[in-house]
Amino acid sequence: MFESFNPIPRILMGPGPSNVSPRVLGALSRPTIGHLDPQFIGLMDEIKQLLQYAFNTQNAFTIALSAPGSAGMEACIVNLIEPGDKVIVCINGVFGGRLKENIERVGAKAIVVEDKWGHPVSVDKVSDAFKANPDAKALAFVHAETSTGARSDAKSLCQIAQQYNALSIVDAVTSLGGSELRVDEWGIDAIYSGSQKCLSCVPGISPVSFSEKAVEILKSRQSKVQSWFLDQSLVMDYWSGEGKRCYHHTAPINSLYALHESLLMLKQEGLENAWQRHQRLHEKLRHGLEKLGIEFLVDEAHRLPQLNSVLVPDGVDDAHVRSTLLSKYNLEIGAGLGQLAGKTWRIGLMGSTANEQNVALLLAALEDTIK
Amino acid sequence: MFESFNPIPRILMGPGPSNVSPRVLGALSRPTIGHLDPQFIGLMDEIKQLLQYAFNTQNAFTIALSAPGSAGMEACIVNLIEPGDKVIVCINGVFGGRLKENIERVGAKAIVVEDKWGHPVSVDKVSDAFKANPDAKALAFVHAETSTGARSDAKSLCQIAQQYNALSIVDAVTSLGGSELRVDEWGIDAIYSGSQKCLSCVPGISPVSFSEKAVEILKSRQSKVQSWFLDQSLVMDYWSGEGKRCYHHTAPINSLYALHESLLMLKQEGLENAWQRHQRLHEKLRHGLEKLGIEFLVDEAHRLPQLNSVLVPDGVDDAHVRSTLLSKYNLEIGAGLGQLAGKTWRIGLMGSTANEQNVALLLAALEDTIK
Repeated sequence: MFESFNPIPRILMGPGPSNVSPRVLGALSRPTIGHLDPQFIGLMDEIKQLLQYAFNTQNAFTIALSAPGSAGMEACIVNLIEPGDKVIVCINGVFGGRLKENIERVGAKAIVVEDKWGHPVSVDKVSDAFKANPDAKALAFVHAETSTGARSDAKSLCQIAQQYNALSIVDAVTSLGGSELRVDEWGIDAIYSGSQKCLSCVPGISPVSFSEKAVEILKSRQSKVQSWFLDQSLVMDYWSGEGKRCYHHTAPINSLYALHESLLMLKQEGLENAWQRHQRLHEKLRHGLEKLGIEFLVDEAHRLPQLNSVLVPDGVDDAHVRSTLLSKYNLEIGAGLGQLAGKTWRIGLMGSTANEQNVALLLAALEDTIK
Repeated sequence: MFESFNPIPRILMGPGPSNVSPRVLGALSRPTIGHLDPQFIGLMDEIKQLLQYAFNTQNAFTIALSAPGSAGMEACIVNLIEPGDKVIVCINGVFGGRLKENIERVGAKAIVVEDKWGHPVSVDKVSDAFKANPDAKALAFVHAETSTGARSDAKSLCQIAQQYNALSIVDAVTSLGGSELRVDEWGIDAIYSGSQKCLSCVPGISPVSFSEKAVEILKSRQSKVQSWFLDQSLVMDYWSGEGKRCYHHTAPINSLYALHESLLMLKQEGLENAWQRHQRLHEKLRHGLEKLGIEFLVDEAHRLPQLNSVLVPDGVDDAHVRSTLLSKYNLEIGAGLGQLAGKTWRIGLMGSTANEQNVALLLAALEDTIK
């Protein structure tokens, strides 16, 4: 009745996962060893260093959380925010809304700064929100909105937070490895990402980094973190290189082999080279889409190279095009999410997916399908 | 500076992870596809059916949670227990203590039934605890204590909970696939396990199942589940076969390929055959250990075949033996945990690890090392 699963391979040009390279899949399937094995402890140390490189940070607390990006988001909120705290949260897409939901489930007060979907977070509105709420403990926003393809000005937003001595909590799920991100230079206090976007690793892991200030705030909490699994004061002792490593849970060993390999590939390419590759292929894609008369949702100045939200042309059947691309070309693009469902396609150029071959194929397949 | 990670393979005879078979590693490394791909949706449905088989349940809500067993534990608690609830929790090892911690972090009251480490949970004490607290909402206990190797009488414990119309919440991290477990027949309401023990899949996934009664309680909650990531009312819509699957997070796609394959192997062997294999190899191990003069921590009647806690013989250096087994034989056994640190070894015979070859090698290597 049941058989081994042998999926037909796909070219993944949606909002993630992106294509995982044979090198990373090879690392993934190496023999499982124990999570307290000295070999594995050495691997964790290297992952930490490679994540510091990818995040552009010296933060000592830089780890790979053993769950997907949504858990990384929740970890940042539940560790740094306590009941009754005020948090300014920016919503310009699905994931800003999810941040608000997390803030409220902690029992904190969310002060919402709202922008139109497809627009970046307004720096002016955030400034006004802090003027009205100078006691806000933190600012939380999404750097690269996966639901719309808009990039916000993380550097300026974090500067405002710093002026008010507030923490900045940044969603970098789609930005890490795909476009400029400088944790230390921009003064980001807590950041989380996902393994399956521009790092092109398998899904299920969330890179997380806390500044010294964030670690201090975690250590001086009044209440226990409401989640035991996500309590980073315990996870810290599990990832720490200093002294005795303290058992917390069993790390997802093979997925960390894969993350290590994908980060190694990023380091070998060079971080800024990877950013440039994403930008170059985005421009090539844009050029081709424009020739097909397909328009972008987001203004040119705020477009993410790795996540291209385009408007479904008038008279074209959204679902039919996506299912034809999948069945005829084994090529996946993403549907619109939330209020953009049926109105946009999301074309991902993330990590290993971002190459000449895939852009050329997508343009040809799309032309064939929508004509 | 950094190189690809190529671990020296180990024979994993500790408390988990167990050895992952080449078949499962092969499935793990198949090409990543999208989590909304029809092929993947079919896979999720099969995983659900195979988990129902492994758990001996017809529960419609039977899923693979996208995080390790500790998150499965937390999911059961945060979804079914609300602030102010009373929960009877049994502690006879590390993981019972962790259950208590989770209960308290929800703001519920933990009524502790304590037993000596290495002993099973006392059915009489649980009965007394219910007599004194007939209004307890739930009973939470560990079926197979990974820290001690003791098996508790899950069937009798769940019967008491049912007499008081209380939910039973059961930790089956180490029991699933390794020894008798009958979710429906025993009347278990919420159960969680781990992928890396007797299923011999890679670590990072937690199989979870809720009875209809548990689902009703989740649906009629007064307060929102404090964790967004672990909110099973949202996860339910992601795993549901009926109607439109609702995006919640990106599933750990490749790890689910591996889980599918490991469950398929369990089905092909036959669940009761797998239980018998664990028991047979445990007896062989016991026989050999007795010849070496090594004694068990747990009484014969309550020993888990898959997790053998034995006393470190007098005059033998615990850490030296473990590190020699690892460096000389590439063979990992586990140290004692918590109050048993330095006093016991934990010898795992879980899943693929439980074969004749490994038992023979361990006995030979141990004899050589402790003499």
